[in-house]
Amino acid sequence: MNLRTPRGVKDFLPPEAEWKLELERKIRSVFHSWGYQEVISPTFEFNGLFTQDSGEERQTYRFFDQNGDLLILRPDLTTPIARIVATRLKDEVKPLRLSYIANVFRYDEVQVGFQREFYQAGVELLGSSSAAADAEAAALAVTIFNDVGVGGFKLDLGHTGYIQGILAECQSPNTRQKIWQLLLKKDLVGLRNLVITSDLPDSIKGLLLKLPHFRGRENLLEQAYASAPNQLAREAVANLRQIYQFLNAYGLGPQIEIDLSIVKSLGYYTGMVLEGYVPQVGFTLCSGGRYDQLGQRFDSHLPAVGFALGLERLMLVLELQGLRPEAEPNGVFVLPHSWPHALDYAARKREEGIRVEVDTEGRTEAEAVSYARLRRFSRVVAVDAAAARHVPLAEKEDQSC
Amino acid sequence: MNLRTPRGVKDFLPPEAEWKLELERKIRSVFHSWGYQEVISPTFEFNGLFTQDSGEERQTYRFFDQNGDLLILRPDLTTPIARIVATRLKDEVKPLRLSYIANVFRYDEVQVGFQREFYQAGVELLGSSSAAADAEAAALAVTIFNDVGVGGFKLDLGHTGYIQGILAECQSPNTRQKIWQLLLKKDLVGLRNLVITSDLPDSIKGLLLKLPHFRGRENLLEQAYASAPNQLAREAVANLRQIYQFLNAYGLGPQIEIDLSIVKSLGYYTGMVLEGYVPQVGFTLCSGGRYDQLGQRFDSHLPAVGFALGLERLMLVLELQGLRPEAEPNGVFVLPHSWPHALDYAARKREEGIRVEVDTEGRTEAEAVSYARLRRFSRVVAVDAAAARHVPLAEKEDQSC
Repeated sequence: MNLRTPRGVKDFLPPEAEWKLELERKIRSVFHSWGYQEVISPTFEFNGLFTQDSGEERQTYRFFDQNGDLLILRPDLTTPIARIVATRLKDEVKPLRLSYIANVFRYDEVQVGFQREFYQAGVELLGSSSAAADAEAAALAVTIFNDVGVGGFKLDLGHTGYIQGILAECQSPNTRQKIWQLLLKKDLVGLRNLVITSDLPDSIKGLLLKLPHFRGRENLLEQAYASAPNQLAREAVANLRQIYQFLNAYGLGPQIEIDLSIVKSLGYYTGMVLEGYVPQVGFTLCSGGRYDQLGQRFDSHLPAVGFALGLERLMLVLELQGLRPEAEPNGVFVLPHSWPHALDYAARKREEGIRVEVDTEGRTEAEAVSYARLRRFSRVVAVDAAAARHVPLAEKEDQSC
Repeated sequence: MNLRTPRGVKDFLPPEAEWKLELERKIRSVFHSWGYQEVISPTFEFNGLFTQDSGEERQTYRFFDQNGDLLILRPDLTTPIARIVATRLKDEVKPLRLSYIANVFRYDEVQVGFQREFYQAGVELLGSSSAAADAEAAALAVTIFNDVGVGGFKLDLGHTGYIQGILAECQSPNTRQKIWQLLLKKDLVGLRNLVITSDLPDSIKGLLLKLPHFRGRENLLEQAYASAPNQLAREAVANLRQIYQFLNAYGLGPQIEIDLSIVKSLGYYTGMVLEGYVPQVGFTLCSGGRYDQLGQRFDSHLPAVGFALGLERLMLVLELQGLRPEAEPNGVFVLPHSWPHALDYAARKREEGIRVEVDTEGRTEAEAVSYARLRRFSRVVAVDAAAARHVPLAEKEDQSC
């Protein structure tokens, strides 16, 4: 029998699973403290829900159920949440702040930081188009990474309006499409070649060649504003400046960088876009932005902003930074010399939240000590009708209980 | 666009999702305090992992991935855990105590208490064949239901050995199979007809007719022992008596009933079987037992015992018993008259674990009050450079902050 797991999915064994759950608890409590309410959506949906307008086809897991309906393992949570908001939460007061921690499925090439089943934690703020809402999403992303202890976390902010403003100056849809693709792949050589050989106006050529270098702090916005070819691009910069000011009010300015070359694969972003990273790894740790048009597909017209972070990627980075917690020995291993007394003792300790295992194998005290060490219990206690007696785990340990 | 979810799966919206997560936290903390370590397995596995020896075919969700491998959405967690124990945890000291809280998928008919995606919480105690281990699994099941507040929870204990002992006296494999199926369906009329028209020995006929009434407390075991047709059946009763004594030592005797007619659909149970229920509903709340042979399929030979409870069923019963918690108003809605001061105030409150939403919509105080009521905040606070000022939610409320 094949005892492997399919490619791109994994088991979380005890120490790692516990760590993952601990991180989820932490993230969940931050989401909650910012007023976000968690929703849980089904693992699979009707395939039609995820039909994409964007050219790029995402690889997904799809299958027919016995009724002949084409189902899909959810590749993201933003779309199911948009469905929920357009249906069962339609009449709720807005804005809505919703969050999730859940697994998603994409049939992508497997590599470090890219699995086929992976966990995302994220939020959606729906029904607000204010810059304060964009800033809140960005600030919450930074806060999560800071609160779980990631070092050197930075958030890049871009804006789809700026690139769309530039592309609006290109006559050829074909050229526009190619430029978008090259920016997406961060293929700067390809971009340079395309731009140089194109018949674009010189000012736009210059701007496209400068674009990958439009990265920096707040002062970059002045330069980008001055270079903006039209009102669309200028509005994008003005919007980003507002968002940046809010982020300064959050005290998070030093962790924010402007990167006007960010282009995202999902076609649905309409305003600010964000990507989080640390210097040690090549993949983004979180990703998101404003998507004001997604709801239209569901006859709902809510502006929205959100982000998702990858839980496995977060764990990978924490591990690289030496921040994976070591499990300290804890809890009690009980030798039940009298069962009723041992179970009573165990019940009382468990009510205090202490991990207690009661021996079911009739171990001797010596066997219990060696087992307890392997299982990382901090104490062995033998309980008989008269008393609970501490069995020393190491020679030097004292015997008081 | 079809905005429904597929049949048999559901959304958990905020108040319900929060309640589900709260129950999971509670269950997880009980599992932990009993020494169980959580594992997380992939949502899908190779189909072959779940191939069943039992006649009964479980309806599952299966699909091919792009490599042509047949995959399956896990219909249970016991099998993946057996895989993990046979591979990556092979060299761990035994017994192993593992737990899970996860979703499973079965293409069954949808009705109250039967969904196609549903959540299970459960444990597996692997590597022990002691009656103390069986009793621990049963005691943990009862403790979970008691700790989450379910009223009137009872656990039925049966034993596959007793029925197998009786069936060993039937010559015809066909009759054995039919009796098993009728007991499984609890079709007592069918059982009676079959037994009466069969050529079984009279003592076995009598025993099969009595079997559905072999339900009761500890004293039933005397009667069952006296009626046992052979050593196999007697050993089953002796084993159950031992388990019952342990459960008395746990103080749980009054919630345990013996039911020797329990027959389970999964072919793999080999000893004690358990089913938990409350009088109000017709479905079981938890189910499990000893399965010493499952590991053999994986070249592992560990005896094991475990149980799983259905989370949605638990929620249904708590709701029926009037025990679904009401969300009390809590947290602070902040009007940011000065953004830096408001965000600083919010950050401090959030660090205390308090839910804080900062208005992103430029609301007036009157609008803030009506929004805060709908969102069930207990306070509205307007923050400017000078102070954080309490805005009364109701007329009679005082304004101290």
